[in-house]
Amino acid sequence: MRELIEKVLSECKKYTADGRVADYIPELKKACPADLGICVLGGSETVELGDCDKRFTMQSVVKPMILLLALMDNGRETVERLCGVEATGKPFDAFNYSDMALRGEHINPMVNAGAIALCTLIGGEGKDEKFERLFSLVKRLSKNQSITVDEAVFRSERETGNKNRALAYMLKAYGMIDCDVEDMLEVYFKACSISVSCKDIANIALVLAHRGRDPESGEELIPAEYSRYVTAILAICGMYDGSGEFALRVGIPAKSGVGGGIMAVVPGKMGIGIYSPSLDKKGNSTAGVKVLERLSAALDLSIF
Amino acid sequence: MRELIEKVLSECKKYTADGRVADYIPELKKACPADLGICVLGGSETVELGDCDKRFTMQSVVKPMILLLALMDNGRETVERLCGVEATGKPFDAFNYSDMALRGEHINPMVNAGAIALCTLIGGEGKDEKFERLFSLVKRLSKNQSITVDEAVFRSERETGNKNRALAYMLKAYGMIDCDVEDMLEVYFKACSISVSCKDIANIALVLAHRGRDPESGEELIPAEYSRYVTAILAICGMYDGSGEFALRVGIPAKSGVGGGIMAVVPGKMGIGIYSPSLDKKGNSTAGVKVLERLSAALDLSIF
Amino acid sequence: MRELIEKVLSECKKYTADGRVADYIPELKKACPADLGICVLGGSETVELGDCDKRFTMQSVVKPMILLLALMDNGRETVERLCGVEATGKPFDAFNYSDMALRGEHINPMVNAGAIALCTLIGGEGKDEKFERLFSLVKRLSKNQSITVDEAVFRSERETGNKNRALAYMLKAYGMIDCDVEDMLEVYFKACSISVSCKDIANIALVLAHRGRDPESGEELIPAEYSRYVTAILAICGMYDGSGEFALRVGIPAKSGVGGGIMAVVPGKMGIGIYSPSLDKKGNSTAGVKVLERLSAALDLSIF
Amino acid sequence: MRELIEKVLSECKKYTADGRVADYIPELKKACPADLGICVLGGSETVELGDCDKRFTMQSVVKPMILLLALMDNGRETVERLCGVEATGKPFDAFNYSDMALRGEHINPMVNAGAIALCTLIGGEGKDEKFERLFSLVKRLSKNQSITVDEAVFRSERETGNKNRALAYMLKAYGMIDCDVEDMLEVYFKACSISVSCKDIANIALVLAHRGRDPESGEELIPAEYSRYVTAILAICGMYDGSGEFALRVGIPAKSGVGGGIMAVVPGKMGIGIYSPSLDKKGNSTAGVKVLERLSAALDLSIF
Repeated sequence: MRELIEKVLSECKKYTADGRVADYIPELKKACPADLGICVLGGSETVELGDCDKRFTMQSVVKPMILLLALMDNGRETVERLCGVEATGKPFDAFNYSDMALRGEHINPMVNAGAIALCTLIGGEGKDEKFERLFSLVKRLSKNQSITVDEAVFRSERETGNKNRALAYMLKAYGMIDCDVEDMLEVYFKACSISVSCKDIANIALVLAHRGRDPESGEELIPAEYSRYVTAILAICGMYDGSGEFALRVGIPAKSGVGGGIMAVVPGKMGIGIYSPSLDKKGNSTAGVKVLERLSAALDLSIF
Repeated sequence: MRELIEKVLSECKKYTADGRVADYIPELKKACPADLGICVLGGSETVELGDCDKRFTMQSVVKPMILLLALMDNGRETVERLCGVEATGKPFDAFNYSDMALRGEHINPMVNAGAIALCTLIGGEGKDEKFERLFSLVKRLSKNQSITVDEAVFRSERETGNKNRALAYMLKAYGMIDCDVEDMLEVYFKACSISVSCKDIANIALVLAHRGRDPESGEELIPAEYSRYVTAILAICGMYDGSGEFALRVGIPAKSGVGGGIMAVVPGKMGIGIYSPSLDKKGNSTAGVKVLERLSAALDLSIF
Repeated sequence: MRELIEKVLSECKKYTADGRVADYIPELKKACPADLGICVLGGSETVELGDCDKRFTMQSVVKPMILLLALMDNGRETVERLCGVEATGKPFDAFNYSDMALRGEHINPMVNAGAIALCTLIGGEGKDEKFERLFSLVKRLSKNQSITVDEAVFRSERETGNKNRALAYMLKAYGMIDCDVEDMLEVYFKACSISVSCKDIANIALVLAHRGRDPESGEELIPAEYSRYVTAILAICGMYDGSGEFALRVGIPAKSGVGGGIMAVVPGKMGIGIYSPSLDKKGNSTAGVKVLERLSAALDLSIF
Repeated sequence: MRELIEKVLSECKKYTADGRVADYIPELKKACPADLGICVLGGSETVELGDCDKRFTMQSVVKPMILLLALMDNGRETVERLCGVEATGKPFDAFNYSDMALRGEHINPMVNAGAIALCTLIGGEGKDEKFERLFSLVKRLSKNQSITVDEAVFRSERETGNKNRALAYMLKAYGMIDCDVEDMLEVYFKACSISVSCKDIANIALVLAHRGRDPESGEELIPAEYSRYVTAILAICGMYDGSGEFALRVGIPAKSGVGGGIMAVVPGKMGIGIYSPSLDKKGNSTAGVKVLERLSAALDLSIF
């Protein structure tokens, strides 16, 4: 398998030239557009190749974690009252939700408005405890206690994240959330700024691929029900408004982030983490998607 | 398995009272709201239970067939130029596509506008030949040459289908299709009026579940690539704007129709056909969805 | 005054180069883009200058006539139940009316959907009588019994008017109108194809400027209440989605058409008809607007 | 005239029962719903009747003042680059501006987003000086140096104005404004909280009615061009998304506020100020609109 992945990686390297590094958060512009790294876990061996040592911020890859913790802390009913589960047909940062009042059914956990709303459902007394609980879940699932927050990215997001700020005040204006908006944005921006490697997100994906259990020890890290819930949401809308295209070409539940990461969950089989910061217009890593398309075809990983 | 299904069916019968028979096409109002029938194919035995002898019109269940034939007749590129693949976040009969000109990327093959557009891509010289080619595909995949068109439903749709007529003229106004609109609507309305049983659609589903092959003979009835394409689209947006909810609760690619049918594709395993004409607000059979939810849980059929 | 108008006309001639002749109705493309004609009635003298002998189709200039007749035949309440009076903030041929069902309050008499809806309120037994009653009102108000319909434009509109056809079927789908759509479109397309001169529409405007009376004979041609109603609607939304800009720069209630005509109503004072078929992006005559802007400034015609 | 107005006022008092006092800003709920006061200036006599001594906050009535000062401080071109002039077809506090990026052409000076944007164009070094310059314009035009800010209302708006906060961050996110959002909102909220009487806003209206001049002294208080600009905008969209209806029924350029005030400008003739805090669904004073409708009919004040 290592050889196959090596071949795919070298063939797909050229696609890094088709996209652009995210620039709406100034700090993200510093990424090297030609980077491409991968970690595949779950077969007989661990494969790490390319720029797999580079660290990148989770960005939207953290959304499944927020959803997971909101589910674990509140149960499904409370979560779904606040945030729907249908694809919105809009970009992840859309404003134009409705002719009328915004309601939970207009958003979902994989768009910014939904993820920000769900941050309010994370248990804990105030922003610091809420963030720590989320951070601790990420560290536990990625089996890496040394993960840190990229403070420069965090400050950059907080300073320039006016679209998210507008969304958050809109949620508050429509009575969907009732908390200090800046506090909640701090949790969200910090979550987006958690700095990980391909292996970290591959480990998280591996747990989801095994319905919440550590495949080695068999220990339940997440309730099976919620693990499948999150995986299904990834299949429907994990790749922004390119999720349909991705389902057709790749067929693997996955979540991308504008930091260049993709966390891919092959149910029952594998967890895959990819890093390549050149993005297409919808915010997905150009080379990362190509790598997954070829691996899916070569290894018959599609769930369809 | 027969016993399990029998139990599930009797438990779910009550949910027929939660919905309403479709009334926007006058002929559909004649259905009996309490009907509930099922056919499960693909295990060791064929299970047909409940009102499985009732016939019903395919309605939107024919959309995957239109897509399939459009793919087989034109290839993927032509199809995707005319009709996108992303969930629209809107009801299936939505008008309000955009602030600007309508484009292929605003629609998909599972909403009316997309399915009508794809009818123009079906090969053949004029409306009659186009319909016959589609009809013949349906008969071949369902292994039932005696299937007919329900003429009363067809006339009812043609007479009252002004929303579809408006959508078709909108497609023409934006230059997306270039044909006689009434001719094309005749193909579409007739396709929706194909009258089938649970077993018919279960047979179609079984072929899709086996990536285009007849599971008995091993013969390729549909190219594997297109079979998976259609299955993936069903997973993303086969259950109208309730597809996300359905993915979470059931996790089986499926297509519903306002005639009360649901065609469910369990990849590698089964084809399921259900008929129960009481619909929820989004147009999905209330009891049908419940039956699938319980079967999925009991038999571990979710793809996630 | 003649000299002033002559000067303005010659200064504004150059603005005909800033726009483009309408091309979405093929027949309209035959117009000469540099044409510029005017007729000003209501001062001590009649002034006709430039290409004032050219004939052009009324197009949207007929909308106030449709509204007027609908008001005269039904009264205000019935009209307003079918068709609202607020500016829509959208182009005249917009589809994207709402997230929900289309209702009267979403449209107004100066957008296509509203004008088509109002055609159903014109008294008379069937399309021919309805059109004749409208045609006869136009002839009476313009004091010109020799006005004709441009049959080539009519056929061209009927053949290519799929956006209007889509709008009409949408009105029917939402239960707002209940009639044969093609019949009603025939009334509308024929109304748009009435062929007039600058003097014809200046005469109509003069009647509206005098609250429904013939300023010479004093005879009431239209009830005063309805004359003012129509004039007010022109001020709010007579110049498509450029009505605000026009109010600021010109300040005269007016209606433009994509045939190049502008009918301007100076309350208590004048009726002005202009023809110049080069249009800006919103569908208003480029040179025509400039001429009115200068005349308004020079003669202090703004109502504000 | 005094008798006429007295009669109209007493007849219209009952319409105060048709509306509701604004409650989205908590402090506004304290108003007495049955209040109805008026001040008419500009005929031979000053008429003040009913609850004309009550003070109320300007709310949206201050928007024309913000527009005026932005015009005076920057000229028309700069103002129109930031903020369009077309009716939006949406409620004043709408979010759903576009499928795409928000641009100046999507808003206008009479909706919240536009008025907040224009606050950034007011001259002066920082929020306090900006507000003082606006406040001083209001005092000068209303001929009342003793006008104050209602601090309780201001605090209430600042605390609960999350929809305006969201709009302001949206303007910033799209690069339309570049300033401290909270500072700018302070200017806006304070402007909305300026506390006036009917006579104060009647005086402002009187200046606009005389194209910027004090009708007594003849002194130019506002450039004529800008006075007419503002008056025209009021005619098009001064009464929220009820401006069309108001133009048809009343025909007087006017601006309403959710504090219950209406400032009505009868060009060349009068300035009228009305206070009655019971509002209809669009935010206009129910009794206030009725009073103006009857006065307009009785005194022939319509500009159409």
